[in-house]
Amino acid sequence: MTTTNHKFELASRPVGLPTRDNWHYAEAPVPEPADGEFLVKILYISLDPAMRGWMNEGKSYVPPVGIGEVMRALALGRVTASKNPAYAVGDTVTGPFGVQEYALSNGASVNKVPSVGIPLPVFLGTLGMTGMTAYFGLLEVGKPKAGDTVVVSSAAGAVGSVVGQIAKIKGCRVVGIAGSKEKCEYIVKELGFDKAIDYKTENVRKALHEACPKGMDVYFDNAGGEILEAALANLARGARIVICGAISQYNNTTPVKGPSNYLSLLVNRASMTGMVVFDYADRYREAAQEMAGWIAQGKLKTQEHVVDGIETFPESLLKLYNGENTGKLMLKVANP
Amino acid sequence: MTTTNHKFELASRPVGLPTRDNWHYAEAPVPEPADGEFLVKILYISLDPAMRGWMNEGKSYVPPVGIGEVMRALALGRVTASKNPAYAVGDTVTGPFGVQEYALSNGASVNKVPSVGIPLPVFLGTLGMTGMTAYFGLLEVGKPKAGDTVVVSSAAGAVGSVVGQIAKIKGCRVVGIAGSKEKCEYIVKELGFDKAIDYKTENVRKALHEACPKGMDVYFDNAGGEILEAALANLARGARIVICGAISQYNNTTPVKGPSNYLSLLVNRASMTGMVVFDYADRYREAAQEMAGWIAQGKLKTQEHVVDGIETFPESLLKLYNGENTGKLMLKVANP
Repeated sequence: MTTTNHKFELASRPVGLPTRDNWHYAEAPVPEPADGEFLVKILYISLDPAMRGWMNEGKSYVPPVGIGEVMRALALGRVTASKNPAYAVGDTVTGPFGVQEYALSNGASVNKVPSVGIPLPVFLGTLGMTGMTAYFGLLEVGKPKAGDTVVVSSAAGAVGSVVGQIAKIKGCRVVGIAGSKEKCEYIVKELGFDKAIDYKTENVRKALHEACPKGMDVYFDNAGGEILEAALANLARGARIVICGAISQYNNTTPVKGPSNYLSLLVNRASMTGMVVFDYADRYREAAQEMAGWIAQGKLKTQEHVVDGIETFPESLLKLYNGENTGKLMLKVANP
Repeated sequence: MTTTNHKFELASRPVGLPTRDNWHYAEAPVPEPADGEFLVKILYISLDPAMRGWMNEGKSYVPPVGIGEVMRALALGRVTASKNPAYAVGDTVTGPFGVQEYALSNGASVNKVPSVGIPLPVFLGTLGMTGMTAYFGLLEVGKPKAGDTVVVSSAAGAVGSVVGQIAKIKGCRVVGIAGSKEKCEYIVKELGFDKAIDYKTENVRKALHEACPKGMDVYFDNAGGEILEAALANLARGARIVICGAISQYNNTTPVKGPSNYLSLLVNRASMTGMVVFDYADRYREAAQEMAGWIAQGKLKTQEHVVDGIETFPESLLKLYNGENTGKLMLKVANP
């Protein structure tokens, strides 16, 4: 059995896109669980746009990762040693285990993964935090009604692809904004979106105007920046904008661009509301059950973009900000 | 009886602050009502920040005023001739009568002013559109609960002064942002606000942080620009921002400044919602009755800033944008 744990620690705070210099790839002995703890051998590590925010100093919805600390990450692994009666060797679990090969846990924010014939990576994606974000952000904040026009940005990403599919399940007309011809084809042909807009080649404001002649009732924003402005320019009366993220702005070296046409909220009696998925933790189980049902019925397709090797972490993370992933990006760290 | 009607027509669309050149001061014979119409002799004309927006080309919540048309304005007057059985000579009415001495109306958007011992100007202010805006914007969109911290900008203005007083009536802690020492004293000493911040001499972000150590639960924005950013930097979890206006931005010759820290909505699970008072038209009567009760009980103080003479309109309007008014600004056009 391996006795060395490899891990990525935050070495310095990035300015703009993180580089390898911002990380320290460290090794240490695999730790032993103390009473109440268990050891997890990590199989998959979730890479998420929010990680960039966790690297910044300053107050946010979670504290920043400290310099010298293991980078925060959600991950999936197997319990290989346990001094916690609630977790047995062999259990498969997800939790905030960090960018490393082995993690100790006391069970905080840990969920057991059931054996239900669904591939493990799905539990970090559609049935994990990104799926929960899509589910609660759309349904609880966006409040779509059948017949509504729902628009989502980063539509081929882990959250956006689920948002669009749930909106279809709820009887909405769905328009996705994505960053390549392939992604646009994917969301329309594979996922059943009604329409796709390629923000790299199209004038998004104009394209939205054509795609949503009556305006959009729900806009789920993962992008921020110019795409948010284009959306604000195309609201229907009473529209709900869900602020889930702003990936276009996370690596700015200049201040975030605020939407200069935010007064469209006034003209259209519209709202813009922020959401953080953790607020719905007591309902994750209910949502996962409903989504697992949709997956089983073929109504909800999942896609994972799996990169091999923990050592690729610094470069793999950048795929999110460069738009190189389709579906849920994650690292495979060990064989299940 | 006068047979000449003086009126201000929009001569050209302003860039930045409107100047006298943007207006044509015209005269014409006083018109005769046709069947279904009545003639109103105007006594008071309401001057409102929104007027600047009506002068711009382009779609908003109401169509722009056309070049050569009488400037849109709410006004209060007496019926002096009528061919409409619902309105009798001598009735006092408010309605969208325009910046002129006499107006024809068919009764659209007209309300009769009851004889209840309340001074007439109040029906263009606290019991008129600005009071309705404060009432519905605060209560229906801001949804304050007793004990909440409520912050309002343009706090000595027609809307802000009513927002703050209603919030006090509802048991909230109220902080007002205003633009002079005198206004700050007025809202605290006369209107009972808990605290005032002078945005011309204080760092608003820092002052809000001190005045609202737990963050603000409701922010009622009439200002936009840097004051909105300062507010976004001081939200409590679940805060509601009411977007009522953005007077700091209406005369921009550069694009509106969007709030660069709008992602504070995400961090704080907060919302920013636009409101237009017309949506509550079927409840104006109910609101006016409740507010008239508060006025009678001395809980709600009204203040009108009355300027004499229709011919002062171009310069009087600018008082709003220069922060020279305290309370509801209006023109007195004729003696009641």
